[in-house]
Amino acid sequence: MNDDRRVRDVGEFGLIAFLAGSLPEFVREFAEGETGIGDDAAVWQPAPGEKVVITTDSLVEGVHFRLDWTDWYSLGHKTLAVNISDLAAMGAAPKLAVITLALRGDERLQDLEAFYQGLGDLAARNGLKIAGGDIVRSPHGLAFHVTALGETKNGQVLKRSGARPGDLIGVTGTIGASAAGMRLLTRDPTDPLRQAATADLLIAAHLRPEPRAALGAMLLEEGASATMDLSDGLLGDLPKILEASGAGAEIDTLRLPVAAAVRSLFPEEWLDLALRGGEDYELLFTASEDAWPKIERGVQSAGGTVTAIGRIVAATATGPAIQIVADERTSEFVRPGAFDHFQT
Amino acid sequence: MNDDRRVRDVGEFGLIAFLAGSLPEFVREFAEGETGIGDDAAVWQPAPGEKVVITTDSLVEGVHFRLDWTDWYSLGHKTLAVNISDLAAMGAAPKLAVITLALRGDERLQDLEAFYQGLGDLAARNGLKIAGGDIVRSPHGLAFHVTALGETKNGQVLKRSGARPGDLIGVTGTIGASAAGMRLLTRDPTDPLRQAATADLLIAAHLRPEPRAALGAMLLEEGASATMDLSDGLLGDLPKILEASGAGAEIDTLRLPVAAAVRSLFPEEWLDLALRGGEDYELLFTASEDAWPKIERGVQSAGGTVTAIGRIVAATATGPAIQIVADERTSEFVRPGAFDHFQT
Repeated sequence: MNDDRRVRDVGEFGLIAFLAGSLPEFVREFAEGETGIGDDAAVWQPAPGEKVVITTDSLVEGVHFRLDWTDWYSLGHKTLAVNISDLAAMGAAPKLAVITLALRGDERLQDLEAFYQGLGDLAARNGLKIAGGDIVRSPHGLAFHVTALGETKNGQVLKRSGARPGDLIGVTGTIGASAAGMRLLTRDPTDPLRQAATADLLIAAHLRPEPRAALGAMLLEEGASATMDLSDGLLGDLPKILEASGAGAEIDTLRLPVAAAVRSLFPEEWLDLALRGGEDYELLFTASEDAWPKIERGVQSAGGTVTAIGRIVAATATGPAIQIVADERTSEFVRPGAFDHFQT
Repeated sequence: MNDDRRVRDVGEFGLIAFLAGSLPEFVREFAEGETGIGDDAAVWQPAPGEKVVITTDSLVEGVHFRLDWTDWYSLGHKTLAVNISDLAAMGAAPKLAVITLALRGDERLQDLEAFYQGLGDLAARNGLKIAGGDIVRSPHGLAFHVTALGETKNGQVLKRSGARPGDLIGVTGTIGASAAGMRLLTRDPTDPLRQAATADLLIAAHLRPEPRAALGAMLLEEGASATMDLSDGLLGDLPKILEASGAGAEIDTLRLPVAAAVRSLFPEEWLDLALRGGEDYELLFTASEDAWPKIERGVQSAGGTVTAIGRIVAATATGPAIQIVADERTSEFVRPGAFDHFQT
């Protein structure tokens, strides 16, 4: 396709019409309905009796993404994925999103079309419709801001505060792959690690994480006691569950589900990537021994996997602590703490 | 208060706690409830049977505001006001908002506290609660992104598409004051116009527009046929109603409600400010002759004013046109068109 038009060639209103056409029909039908794009606000009827779950998350150029590391399809995917992941962590069904594009004005239409295709494909797979949004000029850099709405099932949500001593700690999928992918992106394309057969898999885990909405719904249904999504890494996020629940944790490093590609490409660093690497967007949860087998079957039936990586214990006198157990002889307490965008 | 701490001194999580404390109790109680700030998403129960109205709007530094023109209290006010105004245009009751702060990191805490006070005071006056949000690093400039949720009354909303030939065209409050205030801000503080007794009034209209949520609810209740809010100026916004309704309009310039301060400080330009000046955030609506007296009384009872400024007519063969009538001998057709952020 030889379309070299830029945003400023078609303007704000031309762009809105162009981008709506890039979305799958299911995803855009809401915005084209009675009161979507075109009115001052969108109108949505939640299912009777259900609650509305609301989350908002942004990707800023130079902070959350670099255009020389990502393609535009992946960027659209990830912009929505991080929001769907927050709904998944609550066990909510994704329903609706509004998106703000903060653009310089020199972006190519075909790049934004790819962005909307990535976003639209993920929305369609998750039953989410785009209800509208806003386009603003942003002279110094791109940014994308999404607010996503979900719906509860039977009025219930998953929370961070329900973990109890004795509960198993579980994660869906594997951890560390996204951080490994980002390390690969920092290397020169001719670097032998980038040439490895599995490199693309890890880079894809970083650029297009798959949010676990169906698994979140299953965790809610089968009685997980606490849940959140893994965006800041295991040792960044687990403390938030412990804090909310007033508990501590033991993690068994031998049980961490780390992809073979991560272990083989990063033989020295794989454990650190698994413990502290962020942006996997898998679900971290706790469940009683009784609930565990049902959760395991349920997640399998939804096409996913879960791994028990440790156990909730009582809080220590000094607060929620995490003990890392590697084998029977070695264990250490680690200092919890999430990545802080303003302090490093 | 001698608090010189900056965002990077307290970090993302310290800032969230600090800012929540700046909000009025009513506004923050949701975020501090069972599942607000602290969980992955907020959970809200709309009134049974009502629909959810969703809007999103942003203010970007250098595009929508300048820190040398605004104080931080006003900036917080306006960031929320432009969103509440969109809900008002639908006749929806403001309920909940999430806010994303895109910060450089060197902002003073006391400035952000003033921002939250301005935002919080307006939220409290409008019955809106802050449900949470996101704080992201934005190296090249500040931006604020709000998504606001409202609720319908009896499942109904105001739309742009209901204007019919013969309907009166009305506006709430006065128009042109915000644009006049912005012109004053472009002048040197020592300029005689800036020294005028009424200058501060016009500048306040620009910096702290009061969204008309109560009047929007009244327009819905008393049967306005079409409504929107005035953000792009009368000649930028009226065409959107005409387009949606398939109609034309006649505007009588002698009837435009323009504040005396605008006429006296801008004797040459007041009409242009009233017709094309944006950001008044008043409501523009249409209503049948029958409905008009009820609307007038209803808006008065809610503490507002309405002025009939013209009439809806049939569309011409070339589409929705606006005819400007100044007296019986002069009339001209104007070319409609909204301000486009990417085309100037």
